[in-house]
Amino acid sequence: MENATVLNHEMETASTITIKGILSLLMQNVDEKNGKRLISLGIGDPTVYSCFHTTHVAGEAVAEALQSEKFNGYSPTVGLPQTRRAIAEYLSCDLPYKLSSDDVFVTSGCTQAIDVALAMLGRPGANILLPRPGFPIYELCATFRRLEVRYFDLLPKKGWEVDLDSVEALADQNTVGLIAETAEKLKIPVVADEVYGHLAFGDNPFVPMGLFGSIVPVLTLGSLSKRWIVPGWRLGWFVMSDPCGMFKNPKIIERIKKYFDILGGPATFIQAAVPCIIEQTDEVFFRKTINTLKQTSDICWDMIKEIPCISCPQKPQGSMAVMIKLNLSDLEDISDDIDFCFRLAKEESVIILPGTAVGLKNWLRITFAADPPSLKEALGRLKSFCERHTKILQIY
Amino acid sequence: MENATVLNHEMETASTITIKGILSLLMQNVDEKNGKRLISLGIGDPTVYSCFHTTHVAGEAVAEALQSEKFNGYSPTVGLPQTRRAIAEYLSCDLPYKLSSDDVFVTSGCTQAIDVALAMLGRPGANILLPRPGFPIYELCATFRRLEVRYFDLLPKKGWEVDLDSVEALADQNTVGLIAETAEKLKIPVVADEVYGHLAFGDNPFVPMGLFGSIVPVLTLGSLSKRWIVPGWRLGWFVMSDPCGMFKNPKIIERIKKYFDILGGPATFIQAAVPCIIEQTDEVFFRKTINTLKQTSDICWDMIKEIPCISCPQKPQGSMAVMIKLNLSDLEDISDDIDFCFRLAKEESVIILPGTAVGLKNWLRITFAADPPSLKEALGRLKSFCERHTKILQIY
Repeated sequence: MENATVLNHEMETASTITIKGILSLLMQNVDEKNGKRLISLGIGDPTVYSCFHTTHVAGEAVAEALQSEKFNGYSPTVGLPQTRRAIAEYLSCDLPYKLSSDDVFVTSGCTQAIDVALAMLGRPGANILLPRPGFPIYELCATFRRLEVRYFDLLPKKGWEVDLDSVEALADQNTVGLIAETAEKLKIPVVADEVYGHLAFGDNPFVPMGLFGSIVPVLTLGSLSKRWIVPGWRLGWFVMSDPCGMFKNPKIIERIKKYFDILGGPATFIQAAVPCIIEQTDEVFFRKTINTLKQTSDICWDMIKEIPCISCPQKPQGSMAVMIKLNLSDLEDISDDIDFCFRLAKEESVIILPGTAVGLKNWLRITFAADPPSLKEALGRLKSFCERHTKILQIY
Repeated sequence: MENATVLNHEMETASTITIKGILSLLMQNVDEKNGKRLISLGIGDPTVYSCFHTTHVAGEAVAEALQSEKFNGYSPTVGLPQTRRAIAEYLSCDLPYKLSSDDVFVTSGCTQAIDVALAMLGRPGANILLPRPGFPIYELCATFRRLEVRYFDLLPKKGWEVDLDSVEALADQNTVGLIAETAEKLKIPVVADEVYGHLAFGDNPFVPMGLFGSIVPVLTLGSLSKRWIVPGWRLGWFVMSDPCGMFKNPKIIERIKKYFDILGGPATFIQAAVPCIIEQTDEVFFRKTINTLKQTSDICWDMIKEIPCISCPQKPQGSMAVMIKLNLSDLEDISDDIDFCFRLAKEESVIILPGTAVGLKNWLRITFAADPPSLKEALGRLKSFCERHTKILQIY
């Protein structure tokens, strides 16, 4: 069929590794015959562990909206007015200015918010600056939306701070967006992915990028997924944190609205539950999640120190995952991070993510959103694995 | 801000009229002081009328999946395996071959399925053939995905049959898809939007385009929205009805899967309810909807015959809307279909869609998915309006 050729175009450029893609390959490599229970520390979905579950309030609110039968119809494509208002108020709590309902567009999870940001910024010849390590969906999405990707580094020895010099060196007149500071100087809007917003448990509090919205326009992306532990509900937002209206203009707003007309968007009854979910969730619920993540990240930090051939340059202070450096020269028969993860899956039935999937070769990413016994068991097996594969010192 | 200029590009090309956009302008034109209750026959969302509501089975299945708390996590981006299987089996009932789970991709409503089809077919220089009248989201989506649009006509006097000669004249080596027959001859895949599938109540039964999948590959788009009367649940599908594998090849499948990685997709717990919804919905429920639509379409057909200045060339045999021709020369002070609808909204608080929104200037589209009393009331007011605006015959 001739159209096969038509579709082949861009195939090569869309060859990005996705987290889910590589994890599914790792799963296939697990050897069921070794008798060990599979433990996955590969993805930020805490719902698989019983110590993480959403608040009763949230489930009830959605069930009520569903059972009212008032929300089986279409919502406006940009979202229900009450949902937009509730999200605007929720985000405004942490800002020195008030967001309005019109600044908020309701999306099908943070993933769709990423697509909106990149599709709206894309144009032929444009480029976007992305952090390394980062989230591979940005690169994949940029490819589909015809944006060139340029990477700047996050510095592990400086607490994963942005390498500002590299950002400035990368940006040019075709740069349409980046996820960092220096934006004011460069006059480039910032895409702030705050899907892990508020999930901070170290010395530094969570500071939303929108705080700097009056210096440089910020496109804030977020969702209920992580803070409310409901990634499967697919309820996210794309928000223009731009109090001075530097970015907003009627034509841009019109184009964004039209773009939402072609998106599927989240279910109306889930949207309808959002005001209740935001207003009625108890602080105790949030604190419990934070405390659990603090505890599991401490387990990670303490146990990794005792494991040969890997090291952690920075104690986790937020989110649900930690980057671990692989000291390849200390390992006897492992060629790289991907080889490491495949062998670990096979020998120990433990899944962790090779750093390559997030842009850092010969690093590992471990998700600590797991219950403590599973986490300890998995890290224990990781230790056995590393010990077994450590180079034996040759004494001459 | 310089980036405002960056975003302005394509603004003009994205100037497509959307149904929701024009309806919202019409709503603003309603004069509340005329004391008439607003009746909208503008959009195919029957949930606003009490005679149309979903089956108990569907609501219960979703509530159960939600309350089980087993489906709060991510689903695979292409959809839950059991959901894909259930949709494959559902669609296979009407086909001479079996679809497999792998042929089915779960989308956030039929809207997202449209985007998948067009994004997958798009490439620089490509064009797609669309029917006129049609659904304007196709044009809007084609613009965002950089596909040129070419229109072929549906012939009102031939029961809205495709004008096959015009299709052949339009297609060239860059044509990547169309929504019609003649596809085999032209070797172009067919995008079959079957969101109104099974909602047929005339002499002709519903025939899925996938029936011809072994002659030409068919991309079947559909959803629960219309048949189950839950457009707000955003549960749709993109299906490769291609039993001979003319279109499918590993690279295309890989690209489609990657594209799904950047889409939001529907909520996991709604997906989880789909097998139960499909298996347990009683035929009685479907028949009731069909009977109601038959009854309301008959009301439309009979009442329109009695209204001056408009005529209906074809009795509706399916879906939820009918196209009405505006005989402009018989009207005294109406300039076109848009003017007609704005005046009707203002004077009678009745909303109907100007044909321009679906590609047919000086036609009207009336949705008959309304309860009979509202429909009769609205058509009565439409009659008064037309009578008031009919040209008075001058006798010399």
